[in-house]
Amino acid sequence: MTPPRVCALAGGVGAAKMLRGVVQVVEPSSVTAIVNTGDDVTLHGLHVSPDLDTITYTLANAVNPDTGWGLMGETWNAMAALDRYGAALQQNLTWFRLGDQDLATHLYRTQRLRDGLTLGEVTGEITRAWGLQLHLLPVTDDPLETRVTVAGEGEIGFQEYFVGRQHNVTVESVRFAGADASRPAPGVLDAIAEADIVVICPSNPIVSIGPPLAVPGVRDAFAARRASSVAISPIVAGLALKGPADRMLRELGHDASVVGVARLYRDLAATLVIDEADRDLAGAVQDAGMRCVVAPTVMRTPQDAAALARVALAAANSSL
Amino acid sequence: MTPPRVCALAGGVGAAKMLRGVVQVVEPSSVTAIVNTGDDVTLHGLHVSPDLDTITYTLANAVNPDTGWGLMGETWNAMAALDRYGAALQQNLTWFRLGDQDLATHLYRTQRLRDGLTLGEVTGEITRAWGLQLHLLPVTDDPLETRVTVAGEGEIGFQEYFVGRQHNVTVESVRFAGADASRPAPGVLDAIAEADIVVICPSNPIVSIGPPLAVPGVRDAFAARRASSVAISPIVAGLALKGPADRMLRELGHDASVVGVARLYRDLAATLVIDEADRDLAGAVQDAGMRCVVAPTVMRTPQDAAALARVALAAANSSL
Repeated sequence: MTPPRVCALAGGVGAAKMLRGVVQVVEPSSVTAIVNTGDDVTLHGLHVSPDLDTITYTLANAVNPDTGWGLMGETWNAMAALDRYGAALQQNLTWFRLGDQDLATHLYRTQRLRDGLTLGEVTGEITRAWGLQLHLLPVTDDPLETRVTVAGEGEIGFQEYFVGRQHNVTVESVRFAGADASRPAPGVLDAIAEADIVVICPSNPIVSIGPPLAVPGVRDAFAARRASSVAISPIVAGLALKGPADRMLRELGHDASVVGVARLYRDLAATLVIDEADRDLAGAVQDAGMRCVVAPTVMRTPQDAAALARVALAAANSSL
Repeated sequence: MTPPRVCALAGGVGAAKMLRGVVQVVEPSSVTAIVNTGDDVTLHGLHVSPDLDTITYTLANAVNPDTGWGLMGETWNAMAALDRYGAALQQNLTWFRLGDQDLATHLYRTQRLRDGLTLGEVTGEITRAWGLQLHLLPVTDDPLETRVTVAGEGEIGFQEYFVGRQHNVTVESVRFAGADASRPAPGVLDAIAEADIVVICPSNPIVSIGPPLAVPGVRDAFAARRASSVAISPIVAGLALKGPADRMLRELGHDASVVGVARLYRDLAATLVIDEADRDLAGAVQDAGMRCVVAPTVMRTPQDAAALARVALAAANSSL
């Protein structure tokens, strides 16, 4: 039997954990993750792709387990030295901290982009260097930039909001600059169309899943696969496991619950996996238009992730 | 008495040692060094200015004493991590090694250039951050690129020649790309014109002193100060103390001796300081058109450098 082809729509930490489960359940080389690039940022001239790197490091078992991002055993000598210049300038130059080993990834990516490769091509080189068999595709090779309008401050870049303000500010609106002119990266639409199962990872619906869906053609491609698609709620008991998804959903007029998630995803996926903590809302999810599966969704270990992947993939495709 | 203003023309390691002597002899804030930028290179998207950094680190007493460049107590974690990508690509990405702390300088410079500052302005920020009182000026804020034509290979960049080939190849010609269109950085011509004493540091005459002189207006400005100018020979007993100056002089048809140096500098400086090892050539230097001063020129310690600076400055200005 040919292994089932899985296409996952992914943000950062939550998606990385989910994908670590998926590759335990199906053949890794038959998995393609389409990854948000709205978080990408140019820092000190280097092209940083946080979500791509978080997934790469996680699947390579090299991620810092305490944070869920960055590298295990990282050192911070470059940032410490950069503080000398920041102090002289009376500016915080290291609000976005790049570890010494992590810097190598950004140096490499930046060099290869200058060599003329696309982001997708460089990502392929990086994942191969880390021994990954799963395919990572940036949703687009074109500029795509999540911009956040913050109460009392105006519009700022995503990383300024997320890291700089530690997402501890009120969000008034979010937009994806460049989306209208962007094109899906080569392979993206095919991976969605040809997958046996589509998974929407438990990532922030607004700022992790939203940017890929804003690339012309991508939302329609996912919507066309609704019957074979399963989403995992990033909201558990009204809270985001990580990051500001709950608060952001509320501030932007959504319901910070699995029901609110269902309303956002019902056109994209037939099934929503919700946590056991939200069992009481299963009926409301179904009323909102999605089939509902209840399972443990909090992934503390790779074993948790594999168990969740098994449930999710089975829910999307009963032949598994 | 106003402290004498000194303007020095500088390359990298030899100039840095000399300048460490000069600032012991005259007020550091009255010293301006005009620095070669023909060695500058963009690596992994970062703007690296080797000569500016070598001088900065040396005068900050932070330079690696074993190499004469780079930082003391440096770590190499980013380069080690970059080797992962190089191995995957079967390419040596780390032939030009950037230490973790040194990387901070390049990250900072690159960011500030992106912010719209000139190289000269960023250099001012960097030297202030290191506590330097001496003024460092890149000879130009414009692109200036030393290109070396190597036997059997063709034209390569300076760092490919110097670091990549370890200057262990035959040089057929050297040119300074961009020189014709470049302009002296703000302050350069004034510093030359207003100095009481001009010093041509013991740097490679072809690839360290040559590029600044190729910037339109700079050679004439130095030539106009010939009477107050002293050069220190980078050649001692027919050899370069560091680097390929001797071999390169021969290969390009010059005499690899203090006499050859005198022929290159006689229009720029009235006096040449040569080492005691070359005492026998003092008459030939004078015949070549320069006044000759014999002194110990090998700078093993800051004390050696101060002694040489005292001799050189006194030779250029008997009022000192």
